Amino acid sequence: MEINDISKKRHTLAHLLAQAVLEHYPAALPTLGPAIDNGFYYDFDFGGEKIGDEDIKKIQKSMRKNINKWTHFTHREVSPEEARGVFKHNPYKLELIEEIISKGETITLYTCGGFEDLCRGGHSENPAQEISGDSFKLSHVAGAYWRGDEKNKMLTRIYGLAFENETELKAYEAQLEEAKKRDHRKLGAELDLFTFSDLVGPGLPLFTPKGTIVRDSIVEKIAGIQKKFNYQKVSIPHITKADLYKISGHYDKYGDDLFKVKGRGDTEFCIKPMNCPHHTQIFASKQRSYKDLPLRYVETTTVYRDEQAGELMGLSRVRAISQDDGHIFCRPDQVEEEIKNIIYIIKEFYTSLDMLQDGKYWVSLSVRDPKNLDKYIGDETIWNTAETTLEEICKQEKLNYKRVEGEAAFYGPKIDFQFKDAIGREWQLGTAQLDFNMPNRFGLEYTDKDGTKKTPVMIHRAIAGSLERFLSVAIEHFAGAFPVWMSPVQVAVVPVNADAHSTFAQEIFNTLTESGIRAELVDENESLGKRVRYIKTQKIPFTLVIGDKEKESGKLTVEGRNDEKHENLTVEEIINLIKK
Amino acid sequence: MEINDISKKRHTLAHLLAQAVLEHYPAALPTLGPAIDNGFYYDFDFGGEKIGDEDIKKIQKSMRKNINKWTHFTHREVSPEEARGVFKHNPYKLELIEEIISKGETITLYTCGGFEDLCRGGHSENPAQEISGDSFKLSHVAGAYWRGDEKNKMLTRIYGLAFENETELKAYEAQLEEAKKRDHRKLGAELDLFTFSDLVGPGLPLFTPKGTIVRDSIVEKIAGIQKKFNYQKVSIPHITKADLYKISGHYDKYGDDLFKVKGRGDTEFCIKPMNCPHHTQIFASKQRSYKDLPLRYVETTTVYRDEQAGELMGLSRVRAISQDDGHIFCRPDQVEEEIKNIIYIIKEFYTSLDMLQDGKYWVSLSVRDPKNLDKYIGDETIWNTAETTLEEICKQEKLNYKRVEGEAAFYGPKIDFQFKDAIGREWQLGTAQLDFNMPNRFGLEYTDKDGTKKTPVMIHRAIAGSLERFLSVAIEHFAGAFPVWMSPVQVAVVPVNADAHSTFAQEIFNTLTESGIRAELVDENESLGKRVRYIKTQKIPFTLVIGDKEKESGKLTVEGRNDEKHENLTVEEIINLIKK
Repeated sequence: MEINDISKKRHTLAHLLAQAVLEHYPAALPTLGPAIDNGFYYDFDFGGEKIGDEDIKKIQKSMRKNINKWTHFTHREVSPEEARGVFKHNPYKLELIEEIISKGETITLYTCGGFEDLCRGGHSENPAQEISGDSFKLSHVAGAYWRGDEKNKMLTRIYGLAFENETELKAYEAQLEEAKKRDHRKLGAELDLFTFSDLVGPGLPLFTPKGTIVRDSIVEKIAGIQKKFNYQKVSIPHITKADLYKISGHYDKYGDDLFKVKGRGDTEFCIKPMNCPHHTQIFASKQRSYKDLPLRYVETTTVYRDEQAGELMGLSRVRAISQDDGHIFCRPDQVEEEIKNIIYIIKEFYTSLDMLQDGKYWVSLSVRDPKNLDKYIGDETIWNTAETTLEEICKQEKLNYKRVEGEAAFYGPKIDFQFKDAIGREWQLGTAQLDFNMPNRFGLEYTDKDGTKKTPVMIHRAIAGSLERFLSVAIEHFAGAFPVWMSPVQVAVVPVNADAHSTFAQEIFNTLTESGIRAELVDENESLGKRVRYIKTQKIPFTLVIGDKEKESGKLTVEGRNDEKHENLTVEEIINLIKK
Repeated sequence: MEINDISKKRHTLAHLLAQAVLEHYPAALPTLGPAIDNGFYYDFDFGGEKIGDEDIKKIQKSMRKNINKWTHFTHREVSPEEARGVFKHNPYKLELIEEIISKGETITLYTCGGFEDLCRGGHSENPAQEISGDSFKLSHVAGAYWRGDEKNKMLTRIYGLAFENETELKAYEAQLEEAKKRDHRKLGAELDLFTFSDLVGPGLPLFTPKGTIVRDSIVEKIAGIQKKFNYQKVSIPHITKADLYKISGHYDKYGDDLFKVKGRGDTEFCIKPMNCPHHTQIFASKQRSYKDLPLRYVETTTVYRDEQAGELMGLSRVRAISQDDGHIFCRPDQVEEEIKNIIYIIKEFYTSLDMLQDGKYWVSLSVRDPKNLDKYIGDETIWNTAETTLEEICKQEKLNYKRVEGEAAFYGPKIDFQFKDAIGREWQLGTAQLDFNMPNRFGLEYTDKDGTKKTPVMIHRAIAGSLERFLSVAIEHFAGAFPVWMSPVQVAVVPVNADAHSTFAQEIFNTLTESGIRAELVDENESLGKRVRYIKTQKIPFTLVIGDKEKESGKLTVEGRNDEKHENLTVEEIINLIKK
């Protein structure tokens, strides 16, 4: 790993932190303190003493004072005996020393500002000059097992943030704050999109009416885009005999992630962790001719994977994964056209969400490892054409793509669309993957023009990917303020006064609803201010306030959620505005 | 059981059959021979001799000859000793005799036309006069275990059909023939609607693109009808921790039918055999006020029940059951309105299918057993109102209903719509069921106007019921010729000549498709006759043959599947015709 300047600074700050801790807690035992993304930490054994967030201010103060004396690092190589002597009171450092010895490596000690630590180096040259006191801060304290092993002692970890300068630090803190506000678990509850039940279990979200509208709108949006490519919906059961996965190879591959099902008999069933094997059985249900291809099956259906309980998080990581899945069975000469169509759909969809912007996404084009061509199955010519085709289309479509050699599956190349969410995490959403293997495993075939039996190529594709994961990303990306077409409520109708304006408001509401607009009548017996605040929190795109003026003139004013106003409109004009 | 005339005749014919069998096979041992629906049978032990369908003609001939001598029955009571003497060579009859003795019943022997049999009576007075020789026939031979127990010896069962007269017999045979033609398993394959895979397992249908269109069209039809009642779609996972069903009580109730799920941990999961417990958890996810009610959750989702392998049949009996399920949470004062709405939806839906006709359906109104009111839970007043309301609505809606006392569940009254299919089997499809129990079990509540917490009433409802079962009934009811809105392909476009007319046919096809019509271009390189036959077998409602005349004039002729013709139409007129 290349050590860049900011990493060196962060590493230096870990040393500075240890020195400051020892000033206040001379009995503390420093253990390990690396640089990390966004800053650094150091783990200490404080003996019986409890250290909390309230204790770090004084430590931080000492660090900022001490750094002025940290003008240069010196280091020395020491013998095992000497090292053991220096750290004779610190069993953690002694353990590290024995590890270095056992690997036959050199033991080095680094000193700066009068503080010496066991270290491999990689610091700022002159911390006093290079590191400004306001470019870092201690953020919080957490527990951490020695070497990350829960069988070991629980230590105290002190975290710090560190950037090039104060501006960057503040920007990062603001981003963190924003990410917290956008957290899809928090917003999901506020917008009443989904819920979890202790009785149903973790990782198994239940979607409320509003959440279901959002899910459906995504599925419909994609259906609309892909309509012209003649995809056909199919419908499969969620369970299968284990036999299906023994043939597909997924039985072993999914291992513990596979939910096993036990009925009254001896037959072993599984819940599907993916849909492709089922879809092959629909293909296999009839004789197929070259003229029937391509067959493009799509289905939005839920697969189940038993993720570790500790890894579940909101909708980002669930056990019930609803995929907008598709499988294309085609001839080799049809692969190009099909991949092109899939990329077209992905591009259209994410552009409509404003997510296909530079810096916000990249496309990983996974191809074979050219040094290891033997490990791939399938016809060489088909592979070559497929890889070239994928890359050509990425170029034509001006996608921000990266060719990743060796990342193709053994059964085919693929492209994955990677998007960054508001906290900078990367999510793989859309994907298209060629498969030269599964059709063989299931003995799928079609009769070619010359009467011979041929094996079709299979393409796996998803546009939104997992609806749950997509939703978690979308909620955070839009901070809950979805595009109009995704909004569970598109327009709020608000009578100023219940007695005077409710009837007219109800008429407006009915007209909107009948024309397919999702409207909500906000006519609770609350103050107008309170109701308008409710609309703000719900991030409803449009608001129609109905008062005397509106009732008399029949002309309405639409207020957008970003304070834009459209005045003097008829209901029909409003309907067109919202639909647009 | 009341013994009516036709049962007596059928019972008489079983005796007549035994006599005729003994004429041809003197060593045969008659065992039991009852009247059944549509006729009668008699089980014989033929010793080593094999009797097949080809042997029954001569037996039938003897029956028709002998009946002329069957002018009256006589009977006598006999002592155990005498009975044992008469049947000393027939161990089956001896076993029956011991059974009669052990019950302390009288042993009677009945004789007619010189043939005596152990019997309780219930015959025609004068068979020679009452039973015409052409009103019955022997139909087939099958194996059957003595007393239905597979540990016993396999006997030979001879089946006969018997009706009041020849006309009825012929009508029944024609109906049987028709039922065979309409068998949804046969038609389902011919129309390519669904398939089963040995790898996926029995009772787990996979729906092809065409089958999925039919399923979706049903769901959409119902959604369209129920739209005005503000039902809200929700979306739940297919699995849950067993805890949910332990609280709902379904864990014990479903027993072996429940598919148990095993993940990596110790938690016991189940696949849902119904949706109501999940839906309660969405209700429970928020504070609810009396103003929020009713909440009407709907979801078309699949439940799983481990039916016995031997009971599975096509789509009629499956393990994966897709329900158009709905649950309403309401105040007691809202029950009437809600039930009314449900019945409205069911009535609209089945009327649109022409299935709500006299003689084709009846409504079972299940109410409490008035002699046993203690066994029902829930408020007496709510029960009374609910039962009265249900009956009032049945009357108002002029439904063919029957009040069935004692058939209500312990937790609420219900109405079930029962329909007869082409083979005369009865299926329960639409249903509405009140539930005063489950909301209590889950502690559901809302805040009433006076600030107190109240328990909502829950209503379970389904319109099509199980989509699979509904489809099996619909396929047989319509003999595959679905109403236009349900048809997977609504119109076939057939160019007479590939070279001359394909381009124009393609244009017509595109216009139809773009306006939302499901069209199929039947332009395979086959003779016109063969292509028209394909359209007939596929039961496509409309056909457009495109030849020179059509190409030149631009005016088209639509032929309906029942040979009706609409001539000289523009494409727009055709679109309107099909949409109507």
